[in-house]
Amino acid sequence: MKIIRSITEMQAVSKTHKSQGETVALVPTMGYLHKGHASLMRHAKENADVVIVSLFVNPTQFAQGEDFDSYPQDFERDKAVTEEIGVNYLFMPIASEMYPDGYNSSVVVSGISKKFEGSTRPTHFNGVAAVVAKLFNACLPDIAVFGQKDYQQTLVIKRFTRDLNFPVEIVVAPTKREKDGLAMSSRNVYLSEQECEDATILFKSLTKASEAIKAGERSRMVINNIMLDSLNSIDKINPDYACAADADTFDEPEEFARGQRIVLMIAVYLGKTRLIDNTVITLP
Amino acid sequence: MKIIRSITEMQAVSKTHKSQGETVALVPTMGYLHKGHASLMRHAKENADVVIVSLFVNPTQFAQGEDFDSYPQDFERDKAVTEEIGVNYLFMPIASEMYPDGYNSSVVVSGISKKFEGSTRPTHFNGVAAVVAKLFNACLPDIAVFGQKDYQQTLVIKRFTRDLNFPVEIVVAPTKREKDGLAMSSRNVYLSEQECEDATILFKSLTKASEAIKAGERSRMVINNIMLDSLNSIDKINPDYACAADADTFDEPEEFARGQRIVLMIAVYLGKTRLIDNTVITLP
Repeated sequence: MKIIRSITEMQAVSKTHKSQGETVALVPTMGYLHKGHASLMRHAKENADVVIVSLFVNPTQFAQGEDFDSYPQDFERDKAVTEEIGVNYLFMPIASEMYPDGYNSSVVVSGISKKFEGSTRPTHFNGVAAVVAKLFNACLPDIAVFGQKDYQQTLVIKRFTRDLNFPVEIVVAPTKREKDGLAMSSRNVYLSEQECEDATILFKSLTKASEAIKAGERSRMVINNIMLDSLNSIDKINPDYACAADADTFDEPEEFARGQRIVLMIAVYLGKTRLIDNTVITLP
Repeated sequence: MKIIRSITEMQAVSKTHKSQGETVALVPTMGYLHKGHASLMRHAKENADVVIVSLFVNPTQFAQGEDFDSYPQDFERDKAVTEEIGVNYLFMPIASEMYPDGYNSSVVVSGISKKFEGSTRPTHFNGVAAVVAKLFNACLPDIAVFGQKDYQQTLVIKRFTRDLNFPVEIVVAPTKREKDGLAMSSRNVYLSEQECEDATILFKSLTKASEAIKAGERSRMVINNIMLDSLNSIDKINPDYACAADADTFDEPEEFARGQRIVLMIAVYLGKTRLIDNTVITLP
């Protein structure tokens, strides 16, 4: 596995592979890799000749007061994980090359980026869209693999990729979970043992709402309240939102329709840690 | 020469050429091609193996009340011009494929896009940046050639291309002029014979200011007023702005410095027609 730090070198390497008829997959990460990332990388490996994993903690998607400065890092472990899976390139761009003096551009997705996460973190998705566009142009992948855990992010990325005609196929791979249902996340390292146990309420709440939907519930407010009531059963959990919406458009009708694909999304604070989770379900 | 209308076909064609080791140049146009466009195409031909000319009157860079609906068109002549020069592909995307239902993304360049043209046409450069990003992703060029006549546009395009790491070299080719100095523009077709004569005052005003600068003038306000006074010598000319600024940053100091590269930019209304012109000069 080769480590590449320069954007122009990464472009040249990717162009060389493509000129030899090879396909290139990109897995963008912020490092501190866990089994969820590993499953994305394996998916990439199965679907392309060459796999690039990018590792960049992108400052522009964090707001003031968020955990940019304390975001967990473990380069040696990340290197071992990627090498073991057979990743070809670990792309670790330097912040000053990614955001040089005079950097002044952004990629903005209206509509779907304003709700839910975008409501609590209003600059977050602008930062995500720009850095992913930059990583696409630096790595020139044919496919890019993202985890479903950041559901809204995958929708924003799909939208600007299609809107701006990036020649990249976006693949969304399922969320990996601990045995007790907790969605794997680099931020889980912030949690105490007790908090890890409390955090299982996110998946339990999604499951409760899914079961109600399977049993015929269609009212958005009832579904949302099932999730909220369940979250509120744990004292330490402070819900930010618990919302059902159309899985493609984020429309929020009073009643969902038969056959509609909807997403249930939860965000909570647990102590100082912000956790999110989601599940997608098609109404019977 | 092949005419291509589909974005995915254009991407596939460009990828095929690049996989054969050929370089690809793009010349984005809105059609109604004149000798200025022809010089861009010849420049592209000299610097790449394959030349794509895009022809798309982009609705999102026109504001309400501007000339989108009446923008001049002559497909047969455009086809003849591009064929004669030896252009390989004429890419004419369809508006409904460029901006499908649910299109919701934009490329925004702050700072330099807000002044001058951006002040009179506040949504213009967002439209330009997004469509050029789309054309880059559709045509996948190694180089793209733009005319200096739209000076601010070239700066906005260079900025987002660098900021977002598009692997495209931006080439700016000099403005082509009629014998009397009038900058060639598709919009010149709107002008009557008398207006064509009146319009020569733009280049004359730029020349006057350039001469003053060569003779030692450095005060921005004096330079601007030389241009404005000259423009106002023609009754029918209604100046929008006449400004000197740093050619790279658009900074507007009170006095320019020795050796500084500056741009002189003019925009006027002549009847209902809006005309722009510019010249770049390095202070002695």
